[in-house]
Amino acid sequence: MFQMPSKQKSDEFIDDMFRFLFPVVSGVEQGHYAAELALLRLKGKMQELFLPIRDQFDIGCSRATESFFDALPEVHIKLMKDAQAIFDGDPAAKHIEEVILAYPGFYAIYVYRLAHQLYNCEVPIVPRLFSEYAHSKTGIDIHPGANIGEYFCIDHGTGIVVGETTDIGDHVKLYQGVTLGALSVSKDMATKKRHPTIEDNVIIYSGTTVLGGETVIGANSIIGGNVWLTESVHKDATVYNQSTVSVRKKKTAI
Amino acid sequence: MFQMPSKQKSDEFIDDMFRFLFPVVSGVEQGHYAAELALLRLKGKMQELFLPIRDQFDIGCSRATESFFDALPEVHIKLMKDAQAIFDGDPAAKHIEEVILAYPGFYAIYVYRLAHQLYNCEVPIVPRLFSEYAHSKTGIDIHPGANIGEYFCIDHGTGIVVGETTDIGDHVKLYQGVTLGALSVSKDMATKKRHPTIEDNVIIYSGTTVLGGETVIGANSIIGGNVWLTESVHKDATVYNQSTVSVRKKKTAI
Amino acid sequence: MFQMPSKQKSDEFIDDMFRFLFPVVSGVEQGHYAAELALLRLKGKMQELFLPIRDQFDIGCSRATESFFDALPEVHIKLMKDAQAIFDGDPAAKHIEEVILAYPGFYAIYVYRLAHQLYNCEVPIVPRLFSEYAHSKTGIDIHPGANIGEYFCIDHGTGIVVGETTDIGDHVKLYQGVTLGALSVSKDMATKKRHPTIEDNVIIYSGTTVLGGETVIGANSIIGGNVWLTESVHKDATVYNQSTVSVRKKKTAI
Amino acid sequence: MFQMPSKQKSDEFIDDMFRFLFPVVSGVEQGHYAAELALLRLKGKMQELFLPIRDQFDIGCSRATESFFDALPEVHIKLMKDAQAIFDGDPAAKHIEEVILAYPGFYAIYVYRLAHQLYNCEVPIVPRLFSEYAHSKTGIDIHPGANIGEYFCIDHGTGIVVGETTDIGDHVKLYQGVTLGALSVSKDMATKKRHPTIEDNVIIYSGTTVLGGETVIGANSIIGGNVWLTESVHKDATVYNQSTVSVRKKKTAI
Amino acid sequence: MFQMPSKQKSDEFIDDMFRFLFPVVSGVEQGHYAAELALLRLKGKMQELFLPIRDQFDIGCSRATESFFDALPEVHIKLMKDAQAIFDGDPAAKHIEEVILAYPGFYAIYVYRLAHQLYNCEVPIVPRLFSEYAHSKTGIDIHPGANIGEYFCIDHGTGIVVGETTDIGDHVKLYQGVTLGALSVSKDMATKKRHPTIEDNVIIYSGTTVLGGETVIGANSIIGGNVWLTESVHKDATVYNQSTVSVRKKKTAI
Amino acid sequence: MFQMPSKQKSDEFIDDMFRFLFPVVSGVEQGHYAAELALLRLKGKMQELFLPIRDQFDIGCSRATESFFDALPEVHIKLMKDAQAIFDGDPAAKHIEEVILAYPGFYAIYVYRLAHQLYNCEVPIVPRLFSEYAHSKTGIDIHPGANIGEYFCIDHGTGIVVGETTDIGDHVKLYQGVTLGALSVSKDMATKKRHPTIEDNVIIYSGTTVLGGETVIGANSIIGGNVWLTESVHKDATVYNQSTVSVRKKKTAI
Repeated sequence: MFQMPSKQKSDEFIDDMFRFLFPVVSGVEQGHYAAELALLRLKGKMQELFLPIRDQFDIGCSRATESFFDALPEVHIKLMKDAQAIFDGDPAAKHIEEVILAYPGFYAIYVYRLAHQLYNCEVPIVPRLFSEYAHSKTGIDIHPGANIGEYFCIDHGTGIVVGETTDIGDHVKLYQGVTLGALSVSKDMATKKRHPTIEDNVIIYSGTTVLGGETVIGANSIIGGNVWLTESVHKDATVYNQSTVSVRKKKTAI
Repeated sequence: MFQMPSKQKSDEFIDDMFRFLFPVVSGVEQGHYAAELALLRLKGKMQELFLPIRDQFDIGCSRATESFFDALPEVHIKLMKDAQAIFDGDPAAKHIEEVILAYPGFYAIYVYRLAHQLYNCEVPIVPRLFSEYAHSKTGIDIHPGANIGEYFCIDHGTGIVVGETTDIGDHVKLYQGVTLGALSVSKDMATKKRHPTIEDNVIIYSGTTVLGGETVIGANSIIGGNVWLTESVHKDATVYNQSTVSVRKKKTAI
Repeated sequence: MFQMPSKQKSDEFIDDMFRFLFPVVSGVEQGHYAAELALLRLKGKMQELFLPIRDQFDIGCSRATESFFDALPEVHIKLMKDAQAIFDGDPAAKHIEEVILAYPGFYAIYVYRLAHQLYNCEVPIVPRLFSEYAHSKTGIDIHPGANIGEYFCIDHGTGIVVGETTDIGDHVKLYQGVTLGALSVSKDMATKKRHPTIEDNVIIYSGTTVLGGETVIGANSIIGGNVWLTESVHKDATVYNQSTVSVRKKKTAI
Repeated sequence: MFQMPSKQKSDEFIDDMFRFLFPVVSGVEQGHYAAELALLRLKGKMQELFLPIRDQFDIGCSRATESFFDALPEVHIKLMKDAQAIFDGDPAAKHIEEVILAYPGFYAIYVYRLAHQLYNCEVPIVPRLFSEYAHSKTGIDIHPGANIGEYFCIDHGTGIVVGETTDIGDHVKLYQGVTLGALSVSKDMATKKRHPTIEDNVIIYSGTTVLGGETVIGANSIIGGNVWLTESVHKDATVYNQSTVSVRKKKTAI
Repeated sequence: MFQMPSKQKSDEFIDDMFRFLFPVVSGVEQGHYAAELALLRLKGKMQELFLPIRDQFDIGCSRATESFFDALPEVHIKLMKDAQAIFDGDPAAKHIEEVILAYPGFYAIYVYRLAHQLYNCEVPIVPRLFSEYAHSKTGIDIHPGANIGEYFCIDHGTGIVVGETTDIGDHVKLYQGVTLGALSVSKDMATKKRHPTIEDNVIIYSGTTVLGGETVIGANSIIGGNVWLTESVHKDATVYNQSTVSVRKKKTAI
Repeated sequence: MFQMPSKQKSDEFIDDMFRFLFPVVSGVEQGHYAAELALLRLKGKMQELFLPIRDQFDIGCSRATESFFDALPEVHIKLMKDAQAIFDGDPAAKHIEEVILAYPGFYAIYVYRLAHQLYNCEVPIVPRLFSEYAHSKTGIDIHPGANIGEYFCIDHGTGIVVGETTDIGDHVKLYQGVTLGALSVSKDMATKKRHPTIEDNVIIYSGTTVLGGETVIGANSIIGGNVWLTESVHKDATVYNQSTVSVRKKKTAI
């Protein structure tokens, strides 16, 4: 019989891993052997999660698990850089722990980095379960296949979509409602690059849409809000929507 | 004393029904009498849900329950068609079960089709509880009163709003941030058609707003992103936002 | 060791407080001493929530708790006015209890009013935990520091962002995807007014962005959808986006 | 496949029924429709409990359920008489509610009366699940088949065993460690009376054993502690163990 | 309306207090502020427990709570002595922590010492809820009113009954099935001493019954198993049951 | 820091193992990979259980786990024989599944056989946690160190005590309140045989006590109720308590 991994187990794994990686902000006090016990459990839970699909692993279920846990320290370092980037960009944040504890943008990046790690090991289905959990909790939808550099920053974030073959450099910042999407969605495009490339130090303001696998936003560019882009932009560019706003004395409802 | 149905019971009913309708993707193994037991429980839970409002049923509480469960097989068939439409439109999906398990667009349609069934039996309040549960989990807000045809497809979906008197044909696809709304919200409009009509085979891209009860999007039309429409569009139309984007060498922050 | 309050305790406090303030819509039947017990528990839970950060209170942990509970009756009155405003503006709502039970806009305002109360007592971190819980459940992100008048109305709401130093008058209505944000996000702006002022009786339609601490939307104005505003608008104004929509016979996909 | 009813469901049914029958001592406040809801649920739970064994009912699963709930008011009256008997016999009890809430003897009788009701309807297996739940919580093992009169009183109770074909009159009191058992346990005795008859107003003190289907303890008798009885005793008898106790100045350990 | 305290809250309080007093054996790791938080919660839970009966307190509900928590350190010291006594008397025990973690005799004493503390403050009903919880888990039934000295030791314990006005000295050891009970149970005896006095260093073996308020077991006595005692025994006595056991070649079943 | 294994984890392991070994009576339906998943989890849970005491294993923590799971099939076979023995001896039992599902005697033997397996691998402390869980649920206290043959049968069982160095043959049956104990409890006896030997086919009736490491009950013997034995009995013996019972016309209360 065809089997799927359990959504519930997947969600729990993500929650447990968060507490393991960030004990200070989770009210978890690390005693004598608590970390060791947590690690033992996380590995057991990943085995359970993979059990129904273990025949679909290219590199084998155990090696995928091993490889995932080997990469954890590196993932943790990247996440601390992301948290730093968000902290630096928000006047309201007083401690970096606040960012880790409470910012949905950080949470979405956290889940993406786990999911991307599994995606790289060609683990089937589970990376998508991960990303949909983050989507459900934050409204931020980052495909596990996207390549995202360091110091990635998301502000507010609701409505963000980042497609599977998107490439994002370092020090990029996205606001709520930004879409990095595809122009075409036919099945024969599945293995091609369909989503844009965002180079280092780019800021994209809220409500903006960038589409297409050949679209490149050059480094250091600033893309204003509500912009609709399907062509590349050179580096150091400033792009904004020249919408004409009409203001008049109110007479009728629009 | 005035009574309201329990939000918690409502949410649980939706979760339980999902496991009942889609056991393969729910890690539920169907044994000897599991389906029978599940059905028994679902009916019991619906009775509990309706208990505090049973005096407000036009057709009686029992007949509404009966009628809902009679319609389930048909609802299931429609949902499989919706899953197929989403699967066909997403290059990244490898099995239709992935769509059912993990896609928020499918989940929102699932809840809408249950809620619409109750709405048709004039069950008070509960259909809205259903749709708000989907809204909370997916950011997709489909009013139970909307009429939606077969092979309905939602991609990403966060921020979608579909109003109460919307009519949607077959093979329609909506992207994130699409609003199908009303121009006027005065209370005396409550029984009139206030939301648009979308005919068969229409695609509406992200961030677009279509308003008004007399607005009709003709069959086979494509509506681009970020479009604001308050008037009808003939069939086979392509509509897009002619926004002028200004690109210049960066000097100042916007 | 640096300590953070528990996100889980924070979420539970908000849920419990909802049941306490709105027993009718929560399926809670108030008997002999139920309300008294609930209050006892809520105070205990707030003490637990504050425990790890009690050294960071300006006015002391106990006085903050006391002051919060003293203000509850007033908060309750304000929330009933908000519910009334939402009820009056939605043709589909049949009872005000429906609004309280099921409308995400009301839920977001409920959490905001609690969080704002704590913010006024300079309680650290917790107000942000509150607002992120509402954000996660509704997609509506209202900073606890915002000042919002009476009869505040949110419709649908997904994607709304209201910044820390925003001022909103009475009888204001916001639709989904509205951003009331800042032009600049440098850390040295943390104590300055960075977000706009919205005067009484203003309506802002979906997808509109208003930015800047000096931007004032005059009383009684109507701001259309998809508008991008960084300058003030006089009172009684009607503002709309003059986007040119192109409609043609379909030949190619966009 | 052979199926057994769920032990967990059985235990839960007993707990829920207790709260339904004795709301005052259960911290349950009965509001507008709480009792009705509780009854609806109890019936649903009984249906679930019977589902795996429904083919083994002589009178049909639905009629057994119906008959059980029809008898509930009568069972309740009997239980109040039992509680009264325990209250009257314990100098330490200050309210009859204490007896219902906290006395294991009452709890065992409560479960016995439910189980006996099912036993009378020839419900298979479930009556034994009921009695073993009481046994596990109280150490008192009353077979559902026993016939027990009114005003039955158990004091302390741990270690009491009452066999399947025991007959007990009214106003009988048993202390801890009393066994009313069988002399023979061969399978061909299964349909015969194997356990004793205890007539009205008998008291049996702790540790006493009475065995055999033909053994009758006459009305108004008092049976002392640690007695081993396999023959009948006339009415108004006083029976005690004439054990010789030796007391001497301690020199060696026994 | 007449109210009773919640059995469930009572049980939880006992469990939570155990973890608080014996963190090492409970898998609880005490971090920065864990003990403080636990204490805060325990006090809150006791307040909730007392709420429905607060009008029945002689010394007032708050003073009873205060007095209970003031006595905790002393209770803890006594319990460590009890654990030591059990450890010393059991060849199988390897660490004193094993006794605290796993021995039902210790658990019953633990609950008794809490209940006795409440009994001394004349808290109504709750002490009996406490003792019945221990009874249910261990089969050991110690009335909260009993006075028990230091280094109290229970071995195995199932079936032990210790009545309300029992007095027990230091270094006493009881085996399973021992009853320290009353001869008379008429209501007008409620305020008199009805149960025996056991002086220091007494051992009572399994199955023995000692009855009556004037019965005194003198210091250093050893009472054998299955003894039935209703009269006093001088100090340094050895008492045993002179039962004649008949052994013969088996012919018939008894 | 000194660490103890978690009582809660220990209890859960026993419950989970029961469902794994006896799925039919547990309402567990075994599908495609359910058994495999259950086994994976059980091993994970045993590892967690052993973690805090892993330095105290003679043969190493992993080898103990391995050895335990290797022995499971054999344990299962023995348990089916025990169930058969109980079924054969109880006229009231209609299916062997009833015995497994509901009989406390079987449950106690089940836990004993698991605990004994761990005891044989010299796992510290955990075997005692196991046996105390059974003790708490059934009132039957079998030390994990006892050696018990096949077709072991316990009827009712409350109050049974079986000491650490007891040897029990095949086809032995014990009734409630039987103690197989030690005469001496001094610490220097810890490694010696202190408890009796019961040979094949012995029946011991309720309330009987057999004490001492040199006491042997010969094969095929029947020991009556309330007997106190500290010396050996030859094979084929019938032993009973010659207590004189006095019966007289009631005049005074005892």
